Amino acid sequence: MAPGVSNEKKTDDEQSSKSSVFLLPVSCCRVFSSWLEKMKEDILYHFALGTGTHDFPALFGDVKFVCVGGSPSRMRAFIAYIAEELGLGSPGCDYPNICAGTDRYAMYKVGPVLSVSHGMGIPSISIMLHELIKLLYHAKCSNITIVRIGTSGGIGLEPGSVVITRQSVDATFKPQFEQVILGKTVIRSTNLDEQLAKELMQCSKEIGQFNTVIGNTMCTLDFYEGQGRLDGAICLYNEEEKLQYLKEAYDSGVRNIEMESSVFAAMCNLSGVKAAVVCVTLLNRLEGDQINSSHDVLVEYQQRPQKLVGYFIKKSLGKV
Amino acid sequence: MAPGVSNEKKTDDEQSSKSSVFLLPVSCCRVFSSWLEKMKEDILYHFALGTGTHDFPALFGDVKFVCVGGSPSRMRAFIAYIAEELGLGSPGCDYPNICAGTDRYAMYKVGPVLSVSHGMGIPSISIMLHELIKLLYHAKCSNITIVRIGTSGGIGLEPGSVVITRQSVDATFKPQFEQVILGKTVIRSTNLDEQLAKELMQCSKEIGQFNTVIGNTMCTLDFYEGQGRLDGAICLYNEEEKLQYLKEAYDSGVRNIEMESSVFAAMCNLSGVKAAVVCVTLLNRLEGDQINSSHDVLVEYQQRPQKLVGYFIKKSLGKV
Repeated sequence: MAPGVSNEKKTDDEQSSKSSVFLLPVSCCRVFSSWLEKMKEDILYHFALGTGTHDFPALFGDVKFVCVGGSPSRMRAFIAYIAEELGLGSPGCDYPNICAGTDRYAMYKVGPVLSVSHGMGIPSISIMLHELIKLLYHAKCSNITIVRIGTSGGIGLEPGSVVITRQSVDATFKPQFEQVILGKTVIRSTNLDEQLAKELMQCSKEIGQFNTVIGNTMCTLDFYEGQGRLDGAICLYNEEEKLQYLKEAYDSGVRNIEMESSVFAAMCNLSGVKAAVVCVTLLNRLEGDQINSSHDVLVEYQQRPQKLVGYFIKKSLGKV
Repeated sequence: MAPGVSNEKKTDDEQSSKSSVFLLPVSCCRVFSSWLEKMKEDILYHFALGTGTHDFPALFGDVKFVCVGGSPSRMRAFIAYIAEELGLGSPGCDYPNICAGTDRYAMYKVGPVLSVSHGMGIPSISIMLHELIKLLYHAKCSNITIVRIGTSGGIGLEPGSVVITRQSVDATFKPQFEQVILGKTVIRSTNLDEQLAKELMQCSKEIGQFNTVIGNTMCTLDFYEGQGRLDGAICLYNEEEKLQYLKEAYDSGVRNIEMESSVFAAMCNLSGVKAAVVCVTLLNRLEGDQINSSHDVLVEYQQRPQKLVGYFIKKSLGKV
């Protein structure tokens, strides 16, 4: 172990007591840092945007809803869909990628809705969220709702079911996100907005097109071994051990598995933004590991979270 | 803690003793699983390729060098560069994306060289590596060398320096990769091929165009807090604490920080492929956090690992 480095685990409350923390009122998207105020210019490197080159309040000041998802093309499809739903676009209209200067992430906007891709996994979404929260802060946005619309593996659910996350849990089913900061492990809460989850559930009932449940979502650092798959290049356990693990997950309340919800919940919590995770299940992991539904079926499944969140946004804006 | 889930830490040797493990001779790219042999078809979902729809030996059987990097456009640029260097392409020639059916990863091939993007972070590269190793296994490839060509933050080096990784270390400077499998923590070695690192260093001397060192690379799960940056949306430590951490990293032999090398080393180790990590440093983290060099300077920096690995491939093929 290096000098000064320990495995001591701290919560953020313990940490923040010794830091000089800058907070905006909760209605704003707050940054948890005293440093940003001192910077002349802030370059959001992975968005290819900067406060010295872009007028953030003019570009983003009216944003109220941010939808994030792994795939850039899915987030482009979502902005076209929501534009049409809100009567703000025309069929065939193209929406420019605001992050065209990079291929790390893609970002689209129409009216009060921002749609951003985040790639796969906790580190990838965490970089995006740091820069997104700073973007919303620099733009002086308020009353923001962020929803992750994604895909996942289901446990004990019919494929195509949608899961609204109650709690994001780790691979040992604990509702927490462990992070190493300056060599020390910090534990953060992964609570999500309970009221928002209920509102989304109500929206799904009103749509009435697909099965939707509220359940826990397990967030892992790996798609193959981390989720107990047998079909990876490396697999040192057998089918019985895999099924035992997935059944324990089910018994603890887990209904789906994905790879981003824990850090998403933790960072939105700290930044004071209402957040929800809405993922469709592409398969039932108790039945298998490979995603082998037809392309068309998978495309229709992936539209379900978009439909649900699209309806929620319309309803929130009084357009239903 | 859930039933059957413990924090007990195991090494792979302990684990594998009870598993039925299938290994090909070391000259082949081996999979560490007994499961793949039983499958009629293997769908590499995130590549949009499958053994039932694609002839892997015909498409990939001649691959000897695999270069991987975060950005899809950088990996496209690399294939055009290496094609020209090997006399296998013509200027302006376009190379089709073999994974055109998905936007998760991009893949290009020319002659014996495969170029694949992996996104950002350990989970993203780990999904790609599982599917890449299976692809090479199904294609019956042998004597493979894999090199990650990437970008990083340097410690105590002039920006633009290239680091060839001796050991990939975690955020507490230990040369290991910790992974949770079926709820239990497993520790894997992150050793890289020492001889390959030396050969790459020799290539850099022969090119003589930029500073190159062999050093340890710290692999983190986050770009902001995980690397001690002060300019993230959340920062609960001060500049003095940050600098103390980075200096401890330097003293332990760390010369650069990135987000993929540990799982890359661990998985290549297990699969019996020779592997190296070659990253350019975009800034010196002892001097700052933001990447604010001009676009042109950054583009030139990012070409350095490509030049070095391109020269290595040419030399290996007797074309220098």
